[in-house]
Amino acid sequence: MAGYVFFLKHVLVVSLAMNMGLIWKISYEDDETLASSWGSMLHFYGCCFNGDKNKIIQEVHDGLEESALINLDHGDPTMYENFWKQNGEQTKVVTSSWQHISYFSDIKNVCWFLEPGLVTAITRLHKVVGNAVMEGRHIVVGTGSSQLYQAALYALSPPNGSGPMNVVSAAPFYSSYPLMTDYLKSGLHKWAGDAYAFNKEEPYIELVTSPNNPDGFTRQEVVKGDKGILIHDLAYYWPQYTPILLPADYDIMLFTVSKSTGHAGSRIGWAIVKDREIAKKMTTFIEINTIGVSKDSQIRAAKVLQAVSETNFFDYSHKLMADRWKRIREAVNKTAHFSLPSFPQQTCSFSGRTFGQLPAFAWLKCEGEVDDCESFLRQHKILTRGGKQFGASMKYVRVSMLSRESEFKVLTERLPTIRS
Amino acid sequence: MAGYVFFLKHVLVVSLAMNMGLIWKISYEDDETLASSWGSMLHFYGCCFNGDKNKIIQEVHDGLEESALINLDHGDPTMYENFWKQNGEQTKVVTSSWQHISYFSDIKNVCWFLEPGLVTAITRLHKVVGNAVMEGRHIVVGTGSSQLYQAALYALSPPNGSGPMNVVSAAPFYSSYPLMTDYLKSGLHKWAGDAYAFNKEEPYIELVTSPNNPDGFTRQEVVKGDKGILIHDLAYYWPQYTPILLPADYDIMLFTVSKSTGHAGSRIGWAIVKDREIAKKMTTFIEINTIGVSKDSQIRAAKVLQAVSETNFFDYSHKLMADRWKRIREAVNKTAHFSLPSFPQQTCSFSGRTFGQLPAFAWLKCEGEVDDCESFLRQHKILTRGGKQFGASMKYVRVSMLSRESEFKVLTERLPTIRS
Repeated sequence: MAGYVFFLKHVLVVSLAMNMGLIWKISYEDDETLASSWGSMLHFYGCCFNGDKNKIIQEVHDGLEESALINLDHGDPTMYENFWKQNGEQTKVVTSSWQHISYFSDIKNVCWFLEPGLVTAITRLHKVVGNAVMEGRHIVVGTGSSQLYQAALYALSPPNGSGPMNVVSAAPFYSSYPLMTDYLKSGLHKWAGDAYAFNKEEPYIELVTSPNNPDGFTRQEVVKGDKGILIHDLAYYWPQYTPILLPADYDIMLFTVSKSTGHAGSRIGWAIVKDREIAKKMTTFIEINTIGVSKDSQIRAAKVLQAVSETNFFDYSHKLMADRWKRIREAVNKTAHFSLPSFPQQTCSFSGRTFGQLPAFAWLKCEGEVDDCESFLRQHKILTRGGKQFGASMKYVRVSMLSRESEFKVLTERLPTIRS
Repeated sequence: MAGYVFFLKHVLVVSLAMNMGLIWKISYEDDETLASSWGSMLHFYGCCFNGDKNKIIQEVHDGLEESALINLDHGDPTMYENFWKQNGEQTKVVTSSWQHISYFSDIKNVCWFLEPGLVTAITRLHKVVGNAVMEGRHIVVGTGSSQLYQAALYALSPPNGSGPMNVVSAAPFYSSYPLMTDYLKSGLHKWAGDAYAFNKEEPYIELVTSPNNPDGFTRQEVVKGDKGILIHDLAYYWPQYTPILLPADYDIMLFTVSKSTGHAGSRIGWAIVKDREIAKKMTTFIEINTIGVSKDSQIRAAKVLQAVSETNFFDYSHKLMADRWKRIREAVNKTAHFSLPSFPQQTCSFSGRTFGQLPAFAWLKCEGEVDDCESFLRQHKILTRGGKQFGASMKYVRVSMLSRESEFKVLTERLPTIRS
């Protein structure tokens, strides 16, 4: 019963989010600042509530109406919730109030606030999946991979440089990178835009997101200079999204439970770092920023990652993604208004399956005369994130593929009906 | 049995910390940069391990040797662990792997990632204790109060000011404030030192820590200008440390479970904020910095704070602090080498008891010819944090009063024996 009430509450939150999203969008659509770009993901949650609350609550009980507004702007990864409901007992965490009281987890580790159990679970999972080289590497835990991205910038930017370090990424790039780089007007680093356009004879940090957010393609670095340092964001390098080809072997690799297992609420990410001094500096950043990372969430993440190693989670999640991509492609093929990227088929070393990418986001293009795809879809009550926020054309939008089934179903039913 | 093994592991960590601390201190004692100041609290944890491991493990089993090195430099609040062991069952948290998966907690709240259960627990506790006005205020949750401090700076510094905002605090001030303000070389704000010395005709933010860290005194703002904005750090405004006189009623008030209940490992702090726009901007900072705060820790903190409202925790912790202060004063009175501050007696509106402050740190002064109290105590195997790091004289050190009993006992036995 308690579980059922919790579920209802959860659905209510999402339903409210969708409706609040519309209010926000309408109020702020002319605001094109960086902050509002990020805002399209998150900032509307503090907005006043004007919606018809009773109607929304009714929708929760009835399931989504066919004409409902659906918010696929952000990537809240709720689609794996059912898997965890079926495997809940095995991964239950029990914590007494006297446990994990101290700031410290393992003072022999470069990252002294990293729980040893999480190290074991991360190491084992990467070995099972074969998606990252772990030997001789240092793990740094973060409050989500956002904090680790900022920690890496801090670690890689010289403290006494002649000016802030350039930070670039090939467009289309993750829409939060510019804001995370610049929000404190740091003298250490500054956002320098699309990596394809970067041609200064200056040091730079290049962010390589592979598979890429928003478009799902496998990526390599693009700047041809010799003064670059690379950060690899591998949040989506998991077998439900992409064929695993080789264990990734880069200097700094970022991962997160949000996208691998769907546990966004725990805010746990990890960096795998080759150089000990870089790992130490990243640890220093997190010391100053938040004096470590929640032990409760680390312990829970360890249990969840352990379960991923021991269950059929990737089989389940791969089938779910494959089904969703089949359905969205069928929907898009029924109309001339939209198109989706194509991906080459490759064989996954983890599962043995041959398939093309099944990205966590659909990088949807409005074909024909529609120049602003985000506004166009908004008229049809589908909230997405416009291409401009990713440094790309407004003919593109990013659509979350990770929502609950009820929203995804409405999306695939509505897309073919859109005429103009 | 599992609990006993956990306890032993925990003691081992602390014992290792103490020994590693010495290694670090010896290697870095000449380094006087800001980073190393903070480092004396935390940075040594990544250091290589050269100690006699077997000897340390033996100490864990035997209890601390009389001649052991004791590290009272940082404020790891482990002294309440026994209380929570006795009340562990009541405050146990059970989490299934499908719970708290989403990024979102309550989208109707200004702080959309704040768990409603934590709001209830915080509001109730402040009402029970009478230490903060809650009516009409907004709560913002943070990954510890460090993140909230940075969020407040972000919220209060104009984004397009003519230069970075001045940030001041009256010396002796918390040693981490300068580093937290300046580590990213922000263009928004800069550390401007001792508030007593600030006389610029420019806008400023003044940090008021009351009771103060390191010296335990009740504080008011000291800058006499009219361009100031105040942040009140009330981490120690709880009845085990100070008589509660009135519900605090300031614009921005910071609290944390680390010091109120001793749960530092959960990294949960909260801000009570009068102005909705400031609360929104603080929320924005945390969105960009870490996309919210661990739900697992919020749920645990809610349970712990609820238990504090319902048990005799403050009675227990007050008696513990009173006992420790009695013992440290007796120890100091046996020698002419040291002195401690005196505090006026006042009646606590929460407990009805009349007492002087019982601070979480002892602000110990070396009397006579000793000019560098930190080095002097280090020679006697007591690690403390020197006054210089707090913007004060090197004749002072800050000594943690929150350690486990074994370390505190060694401190009070050793202080009277120190001759030179």
